[in-house]
Amino acid sequence: MAKQAKTAIQPTRAEDFPEWYQQVIKGADLAENSETRGCMVIKPWGYAIWENIQQQLDKYFKATGHQNAYFPLLIPLSYFEKEAECAEGFATECAVVTHHRLEATKQEDGSTTMEPAGKLNEPYVIRPTSETVIGAAFARWTESYRDLPLLINQWANVMRWEMRTRMFLRTAEFLWQEGHTAHETKEEALEETRQMHAIYEKFLREHLAIPTIPGEKSEAERFPGADMTLTVEAMVQDKKAIQAGTSHFLGQNFSKAQDISFTARDGSTQHAWTTSWGVSTRMIGTLIMAHSDDDGLVLPPRIASQQIIIIPVTPKEDTRDAIIDACEALAKTLRAKSFHGEPLRVLVDKRDLRGGEKKWEWVKKGAPIRIEIGPRDLESRKVCLQRRDQASNEKAFLEKEEFLRNVEDTLQAIQDNLLTRATQFRDANITECNDLSDFEKHWNAEQPGWLITPWAGSTEEEETLSKKHKITIRCLPLDQQDGEQAPCILTGALTKARAIWGRSY
Amino acid sequence: MAKQAKTAIQPTRAEDFPEWYQQVIKGADLAENSETRGCMVIKPWGYAIWENIQQQLDKYFKATGHQNAYFPLLIPLSYFEKEAECAEGFATECAVVTHHRLEATKQEDGSTTMEPAGKLNEPYVIRPTSETVIGAAFARWTESYRDLPLLINQWANVMRWEMRTRMFLRTAEFLWQEGHTAHETKEEALEETRQMHAIYEKFLREHLAIPTIPGEKSEAERFPGADMTLTVEAMVQDKKAIQAGTSHFLGQNFSKAQDISFTARDGSTQHAWTTSWGVSTRMIGTLIMAHSDDDGLVLPPRIASQQIIIIPVTPKEDTRDAIIDACEALAKTLRAKSFHGEPLRVLVDKRDLRGGEKKWEWVKKGAPIRIEIGPRDLESRKVCLQRRDQASNEKAFLEKEEFLRNVEDTLQAIQDNLLTRATQFRDANITECNDLSDFEKHWNAEQPGWLITPWAGSTEEEETLSKKHKITIRCLPLDQQDGEQAPCILTGALTKARAIWGRSY
Repeated sequence: MAKQAKTAIQPTRAEDFPEWYQQVIKGADLAENSETRGCMVIKPWGYAIWENIQQQLDKYFKATGHQNAYFPLLIPLSYFEKEAECAEGFATECAVVTHHRLEATKQEDGSTTMEPAGKLNEPYVIRPTSETVIGAAFARWTESYRDLPLLINQWANVMRWEMRTRMFLRTAEFLWQEGHTAHETKEEALEETRQMHAIYEKFLREHLAIPTIPGEKSEAERFPGADMTLTVEAMVQDKKAIQAGTSHFLGQNFSKAQDISFTARDGSTQHAWTTSWGVSTRMIGTLIMAHSDDDGLVLPPRIASQQIIIIPVTPKEDTRDAIIDACEALAKTLRAKSFHGEPLRVLVDKRDLRGGEKKWEWVKKGAPIRIEIGPRDLESRKVCLQRRDQASNEKAFLEKEEFLRNVEDTLQAIQDNLLTRATQFRDANITECNDLSDFEKHWNAEQPGWLITPWAGSTEEEETLSKKHKITIRCLPLDQQDGEQAPCILTGALTKARAIWGRSY
Repeated sequence: MAKQAKTAIQPTRAEDFPEWYQQVIKGADLAENSETRGCMVIKPWGYAIWENIQQQLDKYFKATGHQNAYFPLLIPLSYFEKEAECAEGFATECAVVTHHRLEATKQEDGSTTMEPAGKLNEPYVIRPTSETVIGAAFARWTESYRDLPLLINQWANVMRWEMRTRMFLRTAEFLWQEGHTAHETKEEALEETRQMHAIYEKFLREHLAIPTIPGEKSEAERFPGADMTLTVEAMVQDKKAIQAGTSHFLGQNFSKAQDISFTARDGSTQHAWTTSWGVSTRMIGTLIMAHSDDDGLVLPPRIASQQIIIIPVTPKEDTRDAIIDACEALAKTLRAKSFHGEPLRVLVDKRDLRGGEKKWEWVKKGAPIRIEIGPRDLESRKVCLQRRDQASNEKAFLEKEEFLRNVEDTLQAIQDNLLTRATQFRDANITECNDLSDFEKHWNAEQPGWLITPWAGSTEEEETLSKKHKITIRCLPLDQQDGEQAPCILTGALTKARAIWGRSY
């Protein structure tokens, strides 16, 4: 057997994708499991990505008229029961608070342990989502059509007691934003649902370099209680799908359950039309699986924790200070520049470590640009530039001035390159399929891509196919619901609608 | 009886301070009570203040080398028990999660209700503070002295099941930041504790226009498990004290309980020295009580949700569009300016409401500057300026260019004016007291100010005095622990130490 080139992450993607994912997270120091079941600790390098996502997404929310607010973590059980479908949808994964203090109890061996005490009259559920508690507030705030629309967003933690967890992609507690809006008319609420969906698609594409398929969920896959769920579906490198963000049109279901009513222009009493939409720390999991390689994390510059790492190469004591000064000066110049309206994020790594060790640490952490400055570069006024989207041994020696002149372009080139790669990969792995036996065979592959098929089946028929092949309809792509008539892959009924099928996280 | 001038807030501060506080919050639309016991909904105008506090404080944290991270909401009971003093301190106010799902139960009347199901082997406590869970992570992360210091901050929600709540000042759930650090030496940890304390003092003074007394807590008032607690104590308008932020030196208490140990430079195994420090949404309550008046909220410009409200005055249809255009143009020009490095926050209130109604809404909401532009102003290129820190009928007619030229100065003048007022009020209400009978009499006043006394009493003696007069030692002011020898007000023992006493929220 030929000796394989060693990769910084073991195993490789090809060898064991799920384990590779865990090792990328570990190698980049993004997060770790905690001793709270299914919950992770998000470490600084991972949390910085979330902070960038928050800040950048928040600007889109505010530019479209939304305001942030904060609602209680705990939902009284009686509230939660109001919207039956929603309560049922989350009932199996709710953390329930039943007591409000602890009491020390003496054990037989003389030690004391703490026990729950102060039983509550009514238990509380830790929010798995806040439709009910925010709906109750909306009911208080809405008297007249003049009070509408209500355009509210909340950045918060939520909890869903999942049995099988995976860091970032599925954790019992996660961080997210949840938008909740109430409108006078159905049309306005639909427009809002579509607007936020479009913002998610754009954000994932432009900021995270992740191309998604925007589409509608089938009835079986809708949010409990929604009339329509729009989704953006990302494909990651094992060709599985990840639902990266959803926007729900809730019709009047929640507003009737919670009495969000108002006096309309004609004097009648009406129920508001509501929406909700959210993305979570799951996006970071999607990002890792979409771009990383066998040497570790690859971060798109726009959301990278740090965009440029400057490494002083100081083999000799006599030039050490001068080199470090040059690095700091370069960092200062760079920080005065901006990329998409934000000051460049630059770190000088002055730690007392071997150069190779440092280099590989930043490779594994996915920093988009690494710059080395050594004794020779100091004289020649050059820098050594390495890009994370290129092979790890590729280097460019540039005049410092030239590097500075082009740095924003270089960052954008990396950003664009990641998006192009991910788009090509995805497009190469979505296949049109019009034949049921081809469809059935397709799912025997080890890592099957997505299939797009004409579809006119019922929810039951969808579920039968889904179970059989461990797949789901990821979405009905928005731009492919009105094409040529074709026979549904299962029922043969003529339809203009197309469904995308795939395995998913 | 002479007819009183009507105020926008009823009752006035003099009539009923606690009720005035509730009405200011309501009038400014900052927050409201929810149906989750002791928890509030923070509404957009209130939440924007928190967002500004977060962003501005976060810059200080990052500039001093701290990084943000995120830790689990739920703490296993066994963790929580590890630091006995801390567990005991919070045991009476813990929300406890005991179940992880809900089950529908059929009732006798045919309806179904949801009941907690899926009992957990080990209950979880919703974090009242995260020393234990972050300490467990620190123990994993610390092997060698090279891994230190760890300088971590978390922005999060926490829960303390308080029996008596008051919006912002004391709620069962609140938002805060909690810094947690681990150091190689005692000196470094002490230095960190003092540094963060100084940042809080500066932040409150410069950003919130609240002068505080920085000092040390007496042993009785320390954080459970701390060796030293530093505090910044604010005085609000009923002369009560509010602990606005604390910084704790935890010694090796938590690191020993949780085994945060490392190999030291000399090869020996040592326990780290840890600190923690935090401020919360309580600061917003402090802010309201410190600056607001009988017409409602008064916001310091640096943290105001909006700094400038522009109100188009459009009595006639034919000039309406031109006036609104002028307002929008002015807003655009203002938004391109900045105040302390942030773009000006400006809102044009185009709603179809009567001018007086609008004006009073913004008075109650505490917007620092209101600008009106009407038909005449359009011709004369003037604006009508009103400042929230001046009487509500005071107006200045300024050339638009002059207003624009000076707007940052005007905002700073308002900021400075609020700080000066609050400082004068506080200084006028702290009295030196060297005589026990004066001391005892002082607390009979309806709204007694603070007393500063020589103090060398024991914890028991302090608690006796505290109980008798419903007061506490707010702090031992840092700059007054080494003055003239004087006899302790209670024991008569000669001491250089001084204590500040007061009633508090």
